[in-house]
Amino acid sequence: MAYELHYWPMLQGRGEFVRLALEEAGAPYIDVARGKGDDGSGLEAMMRILEDSSLCRPPFAPPFLKDGAVVVAQTAAILLYLGPRLGLIGTTEADRIWAHQIQLTIADMVTEVHDTHHPVAVSLTYEEQKPESARRAADFRAHRIPKFFGWFERIIGRNGGHHLVGRTVTYADLSLFQLLDGLLYAFPNATHAALKDHPRLEALHLAIRERPRIFAYLVSERRIPFNEQGIFRRYPELDA
Amino acid sequence: MAYELHYWPMLQGRGEFVRLALEEAGAPYIDVARGKGDDGSGLEAMMRILEDSSLCRPPFAPPFLKDGAVVVAQTAAILLYLGPRLGLIGTTEADRIWAHQIQLTIADMVTEVHDTHHPVAVSLTYEEQKPESARRAADFRAHRIPKFFGWFERIIGRNGGHHLVGRTVTYADLSLFQLLDGLLYAFPNATHAALKDHPRLEALHLAIRERPRIFAYLVSERRIPFNEQGIFRRYPELDA
Repeated sequence: MAYELHYWPMLQGRGEFVRLALEEAGAPYIDVARGKGDDGSGLEAMMRILEDSSLCRPPFAPPFLKDGAVVVAQTAAILLYLGPRLGLIGTTEADRIWAHQIQLTIADMVTEVHDTHHPVAVSLTYEEQKPESARRAADFRAHRIPKFFGWFERIIGRNGGHHLVGRTVTYADLSLFQLLDGLLYAFPNATHAALKDHPRLEALHLAIRERPRIFAYLVSERRIPFNEQGIFRRYPELDA
Repeated sequence: MAYELHYWPMLQGRGEFVRLALEEAGAPYIDVARGKGDDGSGLEAMMRILEDSSLCRPPFAPPFLKDGAVVVAQTAAILLYLGPRLGLIGTTEADRIWAHQIQLTIADMVTEVHDTHHPVAVSLTYEEQKPESARRAADFRAHRIPKFFGWFERIIGRNGGHHLVGRTVTYADLSLFQLLDGLLYAFPNATHAALKDHPRLEALHLAIRERPRIFAYLVSERRIPFNEQGIFRRYPELDA
């Protein structure tokens, strides 16, 4: 049975970390909220689950994954669940908990990227919090990119130079690719400059992009372009 | 062998979610950075691990747990690792992944609490970002507390009214207690008002506090008082 991924249909967002794992594994999945609605899919199908008062274990927010009767929300938890099933993590507890730690640290940076354009409130638009965004983005570029990149670079180096965990590609590598890809879109100046000092990150970004299934996905219509509704937004004034 | 918990010694912070699980289970543990240093403990012992370039899998930040040769960082990952070992989660994958989702949602709210006093940058003091904090805290009180509390109240209700997962106390219940306890310290007005509409949350907070081991811990010297260095800070102007 195909996995059902539920996420906002107009943006990559956090759903993209799950999509990349499914695509790399060649797993059958339905991107439910992007369906046309005539077969029970579409945004309404996702909203029905979110608002279903008979569901004992309702998601707090998208993305969530349905695997038969199992519903899993929270991006990192979805990947914790999917990783072994998709062959995207090793079999030992030590490898799995390490990959998960990395995923949670990626998630922390993703939240910080989001907050560069929404430092005050998700209930307001960017235009309603521009001065605060300018201050937050300046700190993000000056302090947070180097801190996170430094750690990612170090752990790749200590693992032999090419992967985050073990000797093969894991979901953590795919998620780091997505984080870097988003940063290159949102903060091209700051990210290109930072990658010069973090060559293993640049190499990982290229290596993942060239994987056959990932490359085919990235050039397909299934890959929603980055845009200013998502987590990674290009506001040139925040990258000056 | 005793677990080693490593965390900043002057504040509860994210380490407290781990401490509560260890205390409820009566597990032997050493709060390493709070040691006096004469036995190889103390803040220096924690810093040595963080800066140890021979460590293949270094923590990004405290808290982290050492269990023999295993080092686990990221609060939610630590509890994922400890939960089964401490008897604080059931045996099925479904229960474990659900408890973990809840923990990650608690972690998201903890980050938002922190950002009410640090919306611009962790590298600055609260005093350097007071106007931004006032705006963020107002939104947090108006929109975020109701959204998170509504979900927690709903999932307790759909689970029979007393616990988050299953029929016994799990680490998720302990973490929700800590979140509520911190909010009652930092935002007493907003939190008391919100709890009136969320009676199951108020009942869970009281029930956890009265558990013998938790109560003994809370009145002990091991419980660091809330203060204005931690995540939950009482700045009355943010709760007006």
